[in-house]
Amino acid sequence: VPPTSLHHALDLLGVAVFAASGVLAAGRKNMDLLGVAVIAMVTALGGGTLRDLLLDHHPLAWIADVSYLWTSLAAAVATIVWVRVQPPPDRSLLVADALGLAFFAIGGTEIAEEAGQSGIVAVLMGTMTGVAGGVVRDVLCAEVPLLLRSGQLYASAAIVGTTLYLCLESAGAARQAAGLAGMAAIVALRLAAIFRGLRLPILRLSERDDPR
Amino acid sequence: VPPTSLHHALDLLGVAVFAASGVLAAGRKNMDLLGVAVIAMVTALGGGTLRDLLLDHHPLAWIADVSYLWTSLAAAVATIVWVRVQPPPDRSLLVADALGLAFFAIGGTEIAEEAGQSGIVAVLMGTMTGVAGGVVRDVLCAEVPLLLRSGQLYASAAIVGTTLYLCLESAGAARQAAGLAGMAAIVALRLAAIFRGLRLPILRLSERDDPR
Amino acid sequence: VPPTSLHHALDLLGVAVFAASGVLAAGRKNMDLLGVAVIAMVTALGGGTLRDLLLDHHPLAWIADVSYLWTSLAAAVATIVWVRVQPPPDRSLLVADALGLAFFAIGGTEIAEEAGQSGIVAVLMGTMTGVAGGVVRDVLCAEVPLLLRSGQLYASAAIVGTTLYLCLESAGAARQAAGLAGMAAIVALRLAAIFRGLRLPILRLSERDDPR
Repeated sequence: VPPTSLHHALDLLGVAVFAASGVLAAGRKNMDLLGVAVIAMVTALGGGTLRDLLLDHHPLAWIADVSYLWTSLAAAVATIVWVRVQPPPDRSLLVADALGLAFFAIGGTEIAEEAGQSGIVAVLMGTMTGVAGGVVRDVLCAEVPLLLRSGQLYASAAIVGTTLYLCLESAGAARQAAGLAGMAAIVALRLAAIFRGLRLPILRLSERDDPR
Repeated sequence: VPPTSLHHALDLLGVAVFAASGVLAAGRKNMDLLGVAVIAMVTALGGGTLRDLLLDHHPLAWIADVSYLWTSLAAAVATIVWVRVQPPPDRSLLVADALGLAFFAIGGTEIAEEAGQSGIVAVLMGTMTGVAGGVVRDVLCAEVPLLLRSGQLYASAAIVGTTLYLCLESAGAARQAAGLAGMAAIVALRLAAIFRGLRLPILRLSERDDPR
Repeated sequence: VPPTSLHHALDLLGVAVFAASGVLAAGRKNMDLLGVAVIAMVTALGGGTLRDLLLDHHPLAWIADVSYLWTSLAAAVATIVWVRVQPPPDRSLLVADALGLAFFAIGGTEIAEEAGQSGIVAVLMGTMTGVAGGVVRDVLCAEVPLLLRSGQLYASAAIVGTTLYLCLESAGAARQAAGLAGMAAIVALRLAAIFRGLRLPILRLSERDDPR
């Protein structure tokens, strides 16, 4: 396996599950079918686009390699067909989002690493790559971003997972094993937050400061 | 007429009508005059800026050619004067927005085409160029983006128009004729949605999936 | 003092106060601690990132020079500790935001100037640099951006301050004196708007045009 194939596969997997999550989110908003497809594609391509713009990687992944666009479109169409045949199970949007977060966060970290970035830049880049697709989806669907809901362990899961990945790798683990461990940590933390109510300490300020 | 002058003219027209739409939208929010001018300029320049960033075209259009800035400023001032002299006709914001969508979508498609992009990339790029200005305007004005209102044929109109443009061109039509046909299709679809209630099928998901 | 050190210092000061403002804003939303840190860093780095993307300055400031990341993180942690020890004074968020606006607007103008941009581009670039961090913060915290609240003199203050800076400089003033005057104008206008209710004329459109 060539060294770059892991993040390419992760990118395509992230594109597919974020496209599905875009359909599930837009489907609640009574949008027309082409509008749903556009939301799905923007959600799927948003994270990687932000990462490539920040790292000045041109042409962008989906411009250089048209399989990104077809993957997102195929995943969107498949999801539309699926949800019309039977209603999606509860929380399917959240699970798709958790997988996309894991794929994009680790893939983005790895790309930053290959570009020679330091650890803190790689963690931040991976976190932003993972988070951006879902934020764009939620903003375009006029929902409060998952990122912002208290105690959802959203950015936190990405930071923990990407840091674990870098630590394991610098401790000598194989890249793919470290990547799997990092993704497993992200998915586990998000699922624990969704299904078990796992929480981090919350910062509370008095409302005295609100001048608005 | 040199081959690149069509999209330059379309860009300037799009800048002018999106600046006017920014004034019309911001004017409902009781913003001060300089704030209105800033919203107008950001709306007018947002679509082209996104397109140039994604295609790595630097310097950006409005940095390389200061006439973009002056056009947006002049259109904003003219609109402010006009709406103070007499109230704008009903739905003038929507009509200005439809024109801007058409100009930017076809202009963006053409630029992607000239940069050697494939058809699907050109359609997506044109659609995003056309849509971005209005989304930025609506987000900054704390409105639900037109893109998201059910059955508005917003992204759909841009996809249909840019696809028509590319099909006509590959069927041998002159670029300017194909561009005019594409723009006419976009404006016609949007006006039919605004004034006649034309709709596309809507994707409806049950609300059972909402875990929030 | 080398000629570029002013805007580097301004950038770091802007990063620190915008990170503090991000903590103060996110702290009202009951976010967990890592989420607060992410909001603080994105707020702190957003303005400079937008400026560098628009000017095609790569690598980005915070990628080339890791002190930006550590400054934002240290300012965020210090603010978290501070607000837990004692509640922040009234309007501390608005004051931090006014300082960040001044530092980033003048710093961004200066960078555009050094890149050989014309006056109107430099003013617009400085204004966008100053405004972007706060807009990202407010959007991520699901607040109406300060930019949009009527009569807040927000974009207006940045435009006046950056224009004053350029005018003083072209009238022969030393860069650092002109920069201090520009920043003082921005902070003074914002504080006058916050504490004294200073206002600009507001554009009012009739609501007749609202077709939505």
